[in-house]
Amino acid sequence: MLRTHNCGELTISNVNQEVILSGWVQKSRDLGGMTFVDLRDRYGITQLVFNMETNAELCEEARKLGREFVIQIKGIVSERESKNNKIATGEIEIVVSELNILNISKTPPFTIENETDGGEEIRMKYRYLDIRRNPIKENLLLRNKVGFEVRSYLHNIDFVEVETPYLIKSTPEGARDFVVPSRMNPGTFYALPQSPQTFKQLLMVGGYDRYYQLVKCFRDEDLRADRQPEFTQIDCEMSFVDQEDILNVFEGMTKHLFKKIKGVEMNDFLRIPYDDAMRLYGSDKPDIRFGMQFVEINELVKNKGFKIFDDAELVVGICAPNCANYSRKQLDKLTDFVRKPQIGAKGLVYVKYNEDGSFKSSVDKFYSQEDLQLVADKMKSNKGDLLLILSGDKDHTRNALNELRLEMGNRLNLRDKNVYAPLWVIDFPLLEWDSDNERWHAMHHPFTAPKPDEMDILSTEPGKVHANAYDLVINGVEIGGGSIRIYNKDIQAQMFKHLGFSEEDAKEQFGFLMNAFEYGAPPHGGIALGFDRLVAMFGGSDSIRDYIAFPKNNSGQDVMISSPSTIADNQLDELFLKITKVND
Amino acid sequence: MLRTHNCGELTISNVNQEVILSGWVQKSRDLGGMTFVDLRDRYGITQLVFNMETNAELCEEARKLGREFVIQIKGIVSERESKNNKIATGEIEIVVSELNILNISKTPPFTIENETDGGEEIRMKYRYLDIRRNPIKENLLLRNKVGFEVRSYLHNIDFVEVETPYLIKSTPEGARDFVVPSRMNPGTFYALPQSPQTFKQLLMVGGYDRYYQLVKCFRDEDLRADRQPEFTQIDCEMSFVDQEDILNVFEGMTKHLFKKIKGVEMNDFLRIPYDDAMRLYGSDKPDIRFGMQFVEINELVKNKGFKIFDDAELVVGICAPNCANYSRKQLDKLTDFVRKPQIGAKGLVYVKYNEDGSFKSSVDKFYSQEDLQLVADKMKSNKGDLLLILSGDKDHTRNALNELRLEMGNRLNLRDKNVYAPLWVIDFPLLEWDSDNERWHAMHHPFTAPKPDEMDILSTEPGKVHANAYDLVINGVEIGGGSIRIYNKDIQAQMFKHLGFSEEDAKEQFGFLMNAFEYGAPPHGGIALGFDRLVAMFGGSDSIRDYIAFPKNNSGQDVMISSPSTIADNQLDELFLKITKVND
Repeated sequence: MLRTHNCGELTISNVNQEVILSGWVQKSRDLGGMTFVDLRDRYGITQLVFNMETNAELCEEARKLGREFVIQIKGIVSERESKNNKIATGEIEIVVSELNILNISKTPPFTIENETDGGEEIRMKYRYLDIRRNPIKENLLLRNKVGFEVRSYLHNIDFVEVETPYLIKSTPEGARDFVVPSRMNPGTFYALPQSPQTFKQLLMVGGYDRYYQLVKCFRDEDLRADRQPEFTQIDCEMSFVDQEDILNVFEGMTKHLFKKIKGVEMNDFLRIPYDDAMRLYGSDKPDIRFGMQFVEINELVKNKGFKIFDDAELVVGICAPNCANYSRKQLDKLTDFVRKPQIGAKGLVYVKYNEDGSFKSSVDKFYSQEDLQLVADKMKSNKGDLLLILSGDKDHTRNALNELRLEMGNRLNLRDKNVYAPLWVIDFPLLEWDSDNERWHAMHHPFTAPKPDEMDILSTEPGKVHANAYDLVINGVEIGGGSIRIYNKDIQAQMFKHLGFSEEDAKEQFGFLMNAFEYGAPPHGGIALGFDRLVAMFGGSDSIRDYIAFPKNNSGQDVMISSPSTIADNQLDELFLKITKVND
Repeated sequence: MLRTHNCGELTISNVNQEVILSGWVQKSRDLGGMTFVDLRDRYGITQLVFNMETNAELCEEARKLGREFVIQIKGIVSERESKNNKIATGEIEIVVSELNILNISKTPPFTIENETDGGEEIRMKYRYLDIRRNPIKENLLLRNKVGFEVRSYLHNIDFVEVETPYLIKSTPEGARDFVVPSRMNPGTFYALPQSPQTFKQLLMVGGYDRYYQLVKCFRDEDLRADRQPEFTQIDCEMSFVDQEDILNVFEGMTKHLFKKIKGVEMNDFLRIPYDDAMRLYGSDKPDIRFGMQFVEINELVKNKGFKIFDDAELVVGICAPNCANYSRKQLDKLTDFVRKPQIGAKGLVYVKYNEDGSFKSSVDKFYSQEDLQLVADKMKSNKGDLLLILSGDKDHTRNALNELRLEMGNRLNLRDKNVYAPLWVIDFPLLEWDSDNERWHAMHHPFTAPKPDEMDILSTEPGKVHANAYDLVINGVEIGGGSIRIYNKDIQAQMFKHLGFSEEDAKEQFGFLMNAFEYGAPPHGGIALGFDRLVAMFGGSDSIRDYIAFPKNNSGQDVMISSPSTIADNQLDELFLKITKVND
């Protein structure tokens, strides 16, 4: 080793030891007769001292060191005069006797500091420098730790990690596949997996009982800020279980992670049926760190002459505590907020429940003080509160009020990053109606089992059937989801029919799974957790990108390696492919 | 859970407990008034008993159970009259009181037994049934165990698992890439990684110090029996190390695995320079479970009138102990063996060192008894031994004798699967000459560092330069290999020049790495172990296929899911691709 110790471990107990360290020059300072160099590696920073009086030549050499030079030094650990209690090595410094420059460095295009002067674009181009910075390094070390803890936990309760293939088969269902042309089988393609869904079910048919895998998945979608074309999933499946078993196992794992990673003991997770989540939060991933639940007030506000409410399918509000003193300007801002195109409400009705017991609202023309008192009572509000009310068709209104509720949560500082509020959303609908294509879609995926006691209405009222499907939600973020699967060939065939698959299509695409179900498929179910998102949540961030060593930008490009790129003509020839359009 | 216990855990200590088990019907036997059913799951087999006298209806039902039916039973654990000490549950049986058929099964196309009647092809098509069989199940559980131990070991010595991207950039160097068309960037392609080589080096530049990853890699090569287009690698890299450090860490890991997996304590691994390995075994992956080292005898056999030896660059033999009694027929078979096209020797010379001290050889016409005595002495042979001698140009002759040596090892039962003989082959040549293309190739890869004391001849005698490169070989199988890397931009540029890259090409393909080396790259090196091969070695098999859950056949096809397959025209259109040839 080119070192005896790393830059994060020497303390007062090492004083007088001769040590060898290697690392990067973080910064250096010349103070008259002394030169101080901060030497950095993955483990920390250690201060080096060069003394002009005792070794002028060496000190001169040290003065020439640039930022990010890689050096190796030998020296004696000494107690510092002015200690730094912010870092582990802050009590000592190394009085250097030998200096060896292992590699020089050009001046980096941005500072390698916690707060850097580099913009997103340049940091991505020089990602190998960006990941030297503490915040990114801590993220990647956190990711490593979470991954290891996940594996340890599952391994210890008899889960088997099985690697499923990456070169699989394209299926039009779901998101768009990345495909891989096969040279050996001209004209045909593999697909990269969107998830190992069918393989994990085949593993259950194969008797593997408790499967997991931390696995890369791929989706060729137009990328939003927080999406990556390749992402990592904690993929799990169990046999001979019902929903309760799966919730318990993965609630156990999540609690274990909170304890190991954050030192937090979690209570049992709340379980909220999907219908309740939509009714009370307007979202299937409610942030329950704060209340402000929806209250539906149709029956109190209709037929009072206010046409907008009269015509609305749903009138629903939230009560923002202690906000009755909001100014005109603040209220206008909230109205602007809900009117943003991506939220799309037409307007916002407010009711101030003043400290003196009176009400002031934007609909005073239509509602008496008594009317408003009834609304206030229904919404369990107190003097000083502000009621915010939206109306319209049910789905859009709930969606808009969900956004408004989260916004109010932010404004009132109710969404503390250090508070964790996990819950299970359960009893999802089995199907959702796609009005564009006039067909049913699987809400979860086509292998999800209907609730057994609703099987009889599957053919008559498919939209009313619920599934044994569940999502794990933490702080308003969907961390994972899963379901109990269909394991009966006939029910699977029925399901495919409802999803508009012809028998032929179903056979072509999932024939092997349906065949497998004929040879003794056990009852089974599973879950997949978004690993990137889970780690980002532990890191206190909404964005997954900084928890990925080499992420891609919103155009799916890795600007560091300039990928994707053109390939040689002979590569195309070997694959029997021709390009019909070239990017300009 | 649909069970209280699994099928592998009940023992005499559970007698009189009421239990619920779930699993597959392995087989059933009707013995007059009793029906016995072997119930199987991942954990083992438990015997169920149905009694015609006490519960005729239930017993009748049990008699209808087919092989591989999935059932759930309730019953009382009882001591068996005739115990089976071959299985963990052999002392007990379950007297069944309730039977619930969870799923039926068609009769499987082959028997789910250790020795099955199914051929390779049908077992691959129904791989989900094949993996139910014990031998495959044990392989996959072994793989899980080895993987977990690898991760634990490396995690405990501060290695960080970092996930590198799968959608990277195609480079013509090395094997053929699988490519992935980019929809968002028409006309361009990602490549799937052949290894994360450049990314792990960038992680070192990024300061990560000790990196590892169990990672899928991809090579679009024409497949031989023991190759897969996707395979798994234990990929590692370290900074501030020299070769010795890397050998020690991964020798430590390998020893740990042998202890944990096989219960074997290993001695320190032998280290053999590449030149010696070639001279003594004719192979850079010698099987050193047995001796039979090569002995070169040019100086003893030349100029005696035997033209074949006189014209040969190399005359070299091995001594097969106690084989002087080989019959004409046996010797002919060995001659046929070395003459096989894939071995390609022209003939085989033998010398029998008879028990009476006389010699009998196929070249008695040219060599006296005294001549042969000298050869026998040089080859340290004893009375009763058989000398097998090949000649010709050095490379082909060594290669052929290597094959013959391994064949003799097999014939003499010297290659015991339960004996493990690991070694490091070190000091590989840096470059090898490609006479077809008249250019130098990197023997390891273009980032491998030349030995520092041979740097001065790199430009004058590149073929004589050795590298700080090493392979881990166990029982004649290359388990892994690696090298100390170049971390200096100028040396890397020089290396690219020797490999025939124009400056432009090098910049186009590896510019980001060469740029990275300008910003303080630390000294570093690494290794990659073939995980599939490592697990197969622990499993005592030469073939990796049975250690992969869902392998591909030699045409790169997954016959279970019928992949690769055609894709929809609109998928091609979205990718701006046209197919120029379709498979017939």
